[in-house]
Amino acid sequence: MQDKEISLAVIQRLPRYYRYLGELLENDVVRISSKELSERMKVTASQIRQDLNNFGGFGQQGYGYNVEYLYTEIGKILGLDKCYNVIIIGAGNLGQALANYTDFERRGFIIKGIFDVNPRLEGISIRGTEIHMIDELEEFVKNNTIHIAALTIPKLKAPAIAKELAKLGIKAIWNFAPIDLNLPKDVMVENVHLAESLMRLSYNLKALEESNTEE
Amino acid sequence: MQDKEISLAVIQRLPRYYRYLGELLENDVVRISSKELSERMKVTASQIRQDLNNFGGFGQQGYGYNVEYLYTEIGKILGLDKCYNVIIIGAGNLGQALANYTDFERRGFIIKGIFDVNPRLEGISIRGTEIHMIDELEEFVKNNTIHIAALTIPKLKAPAIAKELAKLGIKAIWNFAPIDLNLPKDVMVENVHLAESLMRLSYNLKALEESNTEE
Repeated sequence: MQDKEISLAVIQRLPRYYRYLGELLENDVVRISSKELSERMKVTASQIRQDLNNFGGFGQQGYGYNVEYLYTEIGKILGLDKCYNVIIIGAGNLGQALANYTDFERRGFIIKGIFDVNPRLEGISIRGTEIHMIDELEEFVKNNTIHIAALTIPKLKAPAIAKELAKLGIKAIWNFAPIDLNLPKDVMVENVHLAESLMRLSYNLKALEESNTEE
Repeated sequence: MQDKEISLAVIQRLPRYYRYLGELLENDVVRISSKELSERMKVTASQIRQDLNNFGGFGQQGYGYNVEYLYTEIGKILGLDKCYNVIIIGAGNLGQALANYTDFERRGFIIKGIFDVNPRLEGISIRGTEIHMIDELEEFVKNNTIHIAALTIPKLKAPAIAKELAKLGIKAIWNFAPIDLNLPKDVMVENVHLAESLMRLSYNLKALEESNTEE
């Protein structure tokens, strides 16, 4: 219930907290103060306290945060205590890169199938997951519980496939195609727009050069 | 000069404006009102006017925006009227995916070299760009003007390589490794943290499922 009042900005930051806490855990850190956490994350300590208070606040005055407890709780908030079945549409380099990330699996994202239109890829397996032809998609989704579809296909093909996936009942699209998808409101879309990220970098590089020239 | 007063939020949105305007151009749209642009982009018209006013405002009352002009001007603001030389560190699937994106080149990001530690990849070319061994990196960067380095290497290797790149004078890092890089302030870092993006999706999926259960 409380989730609904959490701002988008906090939700955006949660995965980062989760990653940091995971790193601390790997280094056998048992507890951490909001001050230390703030120095590592380059966020103010008051921001951290405020963010974590959204979830009832897991810190204790004079003790700080119990790293493992906080990690587990944030993981639950992010839904990482469950498993998600994932299909990848598009078995090009990017699709194969996603299929090869063992990290995703460790966090409960299980890749169930990969789909492509290229007949030369048919039957090839990537880390044990078979590449199917796209015309098998409908039957596959009907016969398997699929939670998430990653779209690593060209921009012009993405809208139609996304629409089909939504029709088949898939509620979460991880979209790498550089186009916005217009889907029903109950389908979650998370975009990874690489070109836009690269443009932010060129903007910052340009701003840096201009400030150097002015000096 | 005016760039310095532009908020981070606006800068975050600019590449998206640029992408939309590019799509309009491809479809031979000559002009567009802030209302139409707002409907397509799902941002309020007043937000659009406010954002574009940051750059002197390119709209005309009763006419709307000239698409090509606005596209060109935003491109300049983003630094896309220049060319950037890019190297990719890590020739795995993700590095190869980046090297294969012809879209980046079209926008002035030219891939000059790809580096890896795997001797089996030595001398192989991806779209005409050779894969070099990582021990050639220093000489390569000294002999070529490199503006941007993309890091598509494992998390634990990224900080040391990033530090070396900064020492060699590279001012922009496009970081795909799931770790924050601590670099001098005059080195721009743009992170693409895929796992965090996936977690936002699982968060939203979980929130959706919970709201369905409550109904």
